[in-house]
Amino acid sequence: MAPLMEQGTVIALSGGVGGAKLALGLSRLGLGKALLVVANVGDDFEHLGLSICPDLDTVTYTLSGLSDREKGWGRADEGWRFMDSLGQLGGADWFNLGDRDLALHVLRTEALRTGDNLTSVTRTITHRLGIEARVVPMTDDPVRTMVQTASGELAFQHYFVRDRCEPIVTGFEFRGMATARPQPDFMAALGEPDLRAIVITPSNPFVSVDPILNLAGVRDALRGAWAPVVAVSPIVAGLAIKGPAAKMMAELGMPSTALAVAEHYGDLLDGFVLDHGDQDQADGVAALGLKPLITKTVMESLEDRENLAREVLAFAGDLRG
Amino acid sequence: MAPLMEQGTVIALSGGVGGAKLALGLSRLGLGKALLVVANVGDDFEHLGLSICPDLDTVTYTLSGLSDREKGWGRADEGWRFMDSLGQLGGADWFNLGDRDLALHVLRTEALRTGDNLTSVTRTITHRLGIEARVVPMTDDPVRTMVQTASGELAFQHYFVRDRCEPIVTGFEFRGMATARPQPDFMAALGEPDLRAIVITPSNPFVSVDPILNLAGVRDALRGAWAPVVAVSPIVAGLAIKGPAAKMMAELGMPSTALAVAEHYGDLLDGFVLDHGDQDQADGVAALGLKPLITKTVMESLEDRENLAREVLAFAGDLRG
Repeated sequence: MAPLMEQGTVIALSGGVGGAKLALGLSRLGLGKALLVVANVGDDFEHLGLSICPDLDTVTYTLSGLSDREKGWGRADEGWRFMDSLGQLGGADWFNLGDRDLALHVLRTEALRTGDNLTSVTRTITHRLGIEARVVPMTDDPVRTMVQTASGELAFQHYFVRDRCEPIVTGFEFRGMATARPQPDFMAALGEPDLRAIVITPSNPFVSVDPILNLAGVRDALRGAWAPVVAVSPIVAGLAIKGPAAKMMAELGMPSTALAVAEHYGDLLDGFVLDHGDQDQADGVAALGLKPLITKTVMESLEDRENLAREVLAFAGDLRG
Repeated sequence: MAPLMEQGTVIALSGGVGGAKLALGLSRLGLGKALLVVANVGDDFEHLGLSICPDLDTVTYTLSGLSDREKGWGRADEGWRFMDSLGQLGGADWFNLGDRDLALHVLRTEALRTGDNLTSVTRTITHRLGIEARVVPMTDDPVRTMVQTASGELAFQHYFVRDRCEPIVTGFEFRGMATARPQPDFMAALGEPDLRAIVITPSNPFVSVDPILNLAGVRDALRGAWAPVVAVSPIVAGLAIKGPAAKMMAELGMPSTALAVAEHYGDLLDGFVLDHGDQDQADGVAALGLKPLITKTVMESLEDRENLAREVLAFAGDLRG
C-alpha cells in the first residue's frame, strides 16, 4: 500500500517557522482532516492587552498561504503603520505587530475575553482561511515559557525578541504546566488505534517541542501510541536552521548536534531524521536504539517541504511495519 | 486690551469634526494651556474589545496636525490592511479602524484596563503629540448615547456609522448620565473667577453638546460662570455642515435652522454666532434675549478656523463688557 493511501491521523507537533514548513509539506499530501497540527503555546504572551500566539499563528499563516515566504513568519503584503504610530504615541514597540497580523490578535483577544477557548478561536480562524488540516493549540490553559538566564529569568518573548536571544540560557520553566490540560483532540488522536504517525517537526526542542511533551500525560500517551514517533532534527551540521536552538545547546553544555537532539528526546522516539550533512551521526542515533533516516531536511523550496513530508511518512510507515 | 492679550481660561465644548475645527482655530491663537477643550464621550463605544472615543480622537488628531484634512476625521497617511484582514477573518467590519488609528485605541484600551482613567490616558497621548491645549473627556465615567428611532433604540455608532443615520430619530437617551461625574478640570474651570469664555462649538447639539450639558451640575455651572457662554451654529442655511443635525431636527419636528439651535440652547447662552447666510434669523435670536453675531462660520481653510476663533473670543470679550 502506498503511504499516501494510508488511513489514520498524522499528528505533527510544531513550534513556529521550522515546524510550520514541515506541516505545510504534510498538508500538501492530501491528508485533509487526518492531519492534526498541535502547536506550542509556551511562547504565547499578552502584549498591549492582546493575546498573541506566535507559533499557532505562524502555522495558520503558513498553511493558509498567507505567510511572508521570505521571513517565514508574519503575513505577506504586511504594513507597519500601526507600529509607526505606536512608537509615536510612546507605546512599547519592541515586538512587531503588522497591520494585517493585528486583525487576528484583536479578534482572538475579543473571543477569549468573551468566553471562547483557544481551540475554538483557532478552529474558527483556520476554517475561515480555508485550512483543511486541523490546527489545535497544545492546551487551552495558559502555559508560559520562562527562560532562565545568567542575568535572571525572562518571559520568552522578552528573551527571544526584545533581547534577541543574547542572554546566556541556563534553563527553562514552563509556568502553568502543572495544571495545564493537553488539548482534548490531541489526546484523543494519540489514543486512536489507527494513528498513522506522530511527527516531531524540526522546531526548537527546548522551547517549542518540550512544552508540548511536558503536558501531563503526553509523554506516556506517546509511548503508548500505536503509531511510531519520528523526530526531524532542527540542527543541521551543528547549526540551527533558524532560531537559537544551537546557541541554547552550547549554553546548556550540550554539543550542538543532531545526535544531541536525538538524545534529548531519547526513548520517546522510534525514528530520527537527519540531514545528509550529519550522516556521520547516524550510528550514534542507532546506538540510542532509534532508527535513523538520512535525507535532505533543509526545506528551501515548497518541493523540499513536500518531499521531506513524504519521506517522513514513508519512514513512519516502515517503522510501523 | 486686545482679546489675544486677555488672561483666563477659554472652555470649548466639542463633538467631532465641526467642534475640532473651531478648537484648532482657538489653539492657534496663542492661548496655550488656557484653552480647555472638553470632548463629548457619549459616542464612545467598545468595539472588538477596544475602547473607541471618536470625538476625543478627532480633537486629538486635529489639534496635533495628524488628522486627515480631507475627511476631517481619522489620520492622514492612513492604511487599511487591518480592516482588509479583519474582513478576511470574518470580523465585524462595519466600523473603519485605520492601521494608524488602531495604535491609539490599543494603547488606550490597555491603559484603561490596567486602571488609568480616560483623563489620564488623554493627557498622556495629547502631551506625547505635542498638543499644548488641555484636552479632557467630559467625564471619566461611561456615558453612552442611545438613539431612539422609529425602528427601535440603537447604540450611537450603530445609528451613525453602521446604519448611516438612516433610521428616523424620535429621541435620545444618555445611558449612565445619572451617575456620571463631570470631569474635574472642566468643573474647576467653570468656577474660575477669571474664566474668559465658554464656547459651544458648531457640533451636533443633540448628540455632541447635550451629553456635555446634561452632566450633573454643568448647566448650573454654565449659568453661574463669570464668563459669557457663546454658541456657534452648526446649521447654516438650513443644512448641517457635516453630519445628521439638520435631518435630526426635521425628524424631531423642529425647523432645521440656526434659530432653532439657539432656542434649543435657550437661556444657557449669552451670545449666538450665525453665518452670513442666516442673517435673517438674527432678530429671532435677539428676541430670545441673546446677542447675535453674524460672521462667516463655515470653516474651509485654516485661516477660516483662526478667524472664526478670533471673532468668537472678541464677541465673548464684548459680552463680558
